[in-house]
Amino acid sequence: MKFTINKKTLIDGVNTSIGAISNKSQIPVLNGIYLNITQEGITLIGSNGDITIRTFIPATDGEDTIIQDIHEGSVVLQAKLLNSILRKLPEQSVSVEMDEGLRVIIKSGKSKFKLNGMDAAEYPKLPNTTDVNALEIESNVLKDIINQTVFAVSIVETRPILTGVNFKKQGEQLKFVATDSHRLSQIITDLDAPEDFDTTIPGISLKELNKVLPENEVVKLTVKNNMIFFEFGTTLFFSRILDGNYPETDRLIPNTEKTTVKVSNKELTSSLERALVLSDKPIVKLSIDGGIMASITSNTPEVGNLSEDVVLENFEGEDVVISFSAKFALEALKAIKDDNIIIGFNGPMRPFTFKAENDESTLQLVLPVRTV
Amino acid sequence: MKFTINKKTLIDGVNTSIGAISNKSQIPVLNGIYLNITQEGITLIGSNGDITIRTFIPATDGEDTIIQDIHEGSVVLQAKLLNSILRKLPEQSVSVEMDEGLRVIIKSGKSKFKLNGMDAAEYPKLPNTTDVNALEIESNVLKDIINQTVFAVSIVETRPILTGVNFKKQGEQLKFVATDSHRLSQIITDLDAPEDFDTTIPGISLKELNKVLPENEVVKLTVKNNMIFFEFGTTLFFSRILDGNYPETDRLIPNTEKTTVKVSNKELTSSLERALVLSDKPIVKLSIDGGIMASITSNTPEVGNLSEDVVLENFEGEDVVISFSAKFALEALKAIKDDNIIIGFNGPMRPFTFKAENDESTLQLVLPVRTV
Repeated sequence: MKFTINKKTLIDGVNTSIGAISNKSQIPVLNGIYLNITQEGITLIGSNGDITIRTFIPATDGEDTIIQDIHEGSVVLQAKLLNSILRKLPEQSVSVEMDEGLRVIIKSGKSKFKLNGMDAAEYPKLPNTTDVNALEIESNVLKDIINQTVFAVSIVETRPILTGVNFKKQGEQLKFVATDSHRLSQIITDLDAPEDFDTTIPGISLKELNKVLPENEVVKLTVKNNMIFFEFGTTLFFSRILDGNYPETDRLIPNTEKTTVKVSNKELTSSLERALVLSDKPIVKLSIDGGIMASITSNTPEVGNLSEDVVLENFEGEDVVISFSAKFALEALKAIKDDNIIIGFNGPMRPFTFKAENDESTLQLVLPVRTV
Repeated sequence: MKFTINKKTLIDGVNTSIGAISNKSQIPVLNGIYLNITQEGITLIGSNGDITIRTFIPATDGEDTIIQDIHEGSVVLQAKLLNSILRKLPEQSVSVEMDEGLRVIIKSGKSKFKLNGMDAAEYPKLPNTTDVNALEIESNVLKDIINQTVFAVSIVETRPILTGVNFKKQGEQLKFVATDSHRLSQIITDLDAPEDFDTTIPGISLKELNKVLPENEVVKLTVKNNMIFFEFGTTLFFSRILDGNYPETDRLIPNTEKTTVKVSNKELTSSLERALVLSDKPIVKLSIDGGIMASITSNTPEVGNLSEDVVLENFEGEDVVISFSAKFALEALKAIKDDNIIIGFNGPMRPFTFKAENDESTLQLVLPVRTV
């Protein structure tokens, strides 16, 4: 096995695959990055068993030669070590060569590293993907969907299905929902999807996917054998999906509101962030009385307390006093990209909602906290 | 107690004093920052018992009023909490007010924090400084001296005196030395000092001092009662000094060299940094044979090995093969600000030296490591 390539190109490929590697796998070969070189190019694979990322560096790009001096072969190299070495090499060009004893020599300028490789034959085989039943999403849209839902998944394993984001066809629309049963995030889009699309993808998989998703590419999603495949450019990302049926969440979402107000996203965010100064997980009390100004208070007895006034617009309905987690409200506000937020209340003990003033697709719901 | 001030000005004062506060002190009042407000201005003090930083914000600056609405008084506030609150306040102006029950109200715009203060009477009294026997150093020179020595102090307490940097008058010069007995760093300057100046300052104190030293100010050093005082601008930084006599280090420094070479600081640094990819504490072997090129090798059996060629200039004397800690050599190289380094060897078992090509004042010495 041998090839010569521009350092930057190889680093980009390694960076894409390395996101799937945990460095702490019980299976030694999974701590490595799989490299397979053919006359067509280099295939790189990283995996932690749950998530796998395969990417490809083609040998040529039109008239340009990207990889020189190709001798076919494959090897598995310590991922973190390879990454560190490539970043420290003195010259732009790097050559990689393996001798018969799995010894890999990485040369650049006056530097020469010799590493112990692992046998590529020990690397797990990848499942095959198919083109049937594919859903296509523009990468920037998929990034937005992930950013606006994934924070709300459960991080405890008591109900494993809640650790994922549910992707589901509903009529002519596609619905994305995440909830940890204390708050819920939902996006409804007009995306076209295969008839039976209903799958729940682990939040941690989507977070890793988000890191490697490029801008402005079409992403093709396929579900097969309890796996979901995301294909984009020369990269294939796949993950296990969660077993079981996602709970029916529509009944949680109120159809009417007893109180609605408009507030500045920035002003409300900055008031709630100050509550985080007094405590890691502050509970705040929001009081609306008369409708021109809301007061937000937060009390951490051993440290002190905070009171804030927030300007309200378009107040309609009843006065309300409600307590909730500042952290959940902040995460909900962050997921809404609008300058102004419409908050809808149904009394002090019912979930309340955050919506963008100018966008119907996103809904953030937070449950109140009972206080003494 | 009451005052109103620009948020930024108060943050700067808090930031200066907070460097001395550990947040984990057994004495509750030392987890706080002491504030004393008079018609002249605000005094802020932070201390961990070993290091104390006192700074002052004057009430006026010429014609300009810096602090408004002054009612005299003092209080101690949780340092980290105060700092976080000030940074999050919505407006530029902040007012601070204490009621009779040590309750402190911090107001800015529509935000109001109430904090539990601590009784200023419980705060330790500060020692007095005097103006006798003062040594004056320009702050940028003192920063350089700290940066070029403090990394070489011992971090183990087996010989406590070695955890400090020795400042000593020697003839008409002032000598600064740090050593952990595996390497040594020395600077000799033409600074004028009081006759008996010989004091060893804890490395951790100098690191904290370095963080708060401003650019281009004169720093006045005074030693009194086992304390060293550094005065600059409106700030006083003081620290305990180390008991005992600093060892005689001149005998460690070779007067002659059997081999000298000139190398590029950047090239040697980058070669040695690559050895750090294979191991946290790599031992490298440097071989000079013939004098045009040195080879550097490093071997970490379970991971792999590295070989590097480094261009030599002005080789004089004997060939040499010597093993040493890459980390110690890198720290020594970093402390020398010259593009070119002169290395002097006295055979494989004797300490070797790094000097700047164009600056005689700094000497870095590293002991070799015996290898099998």
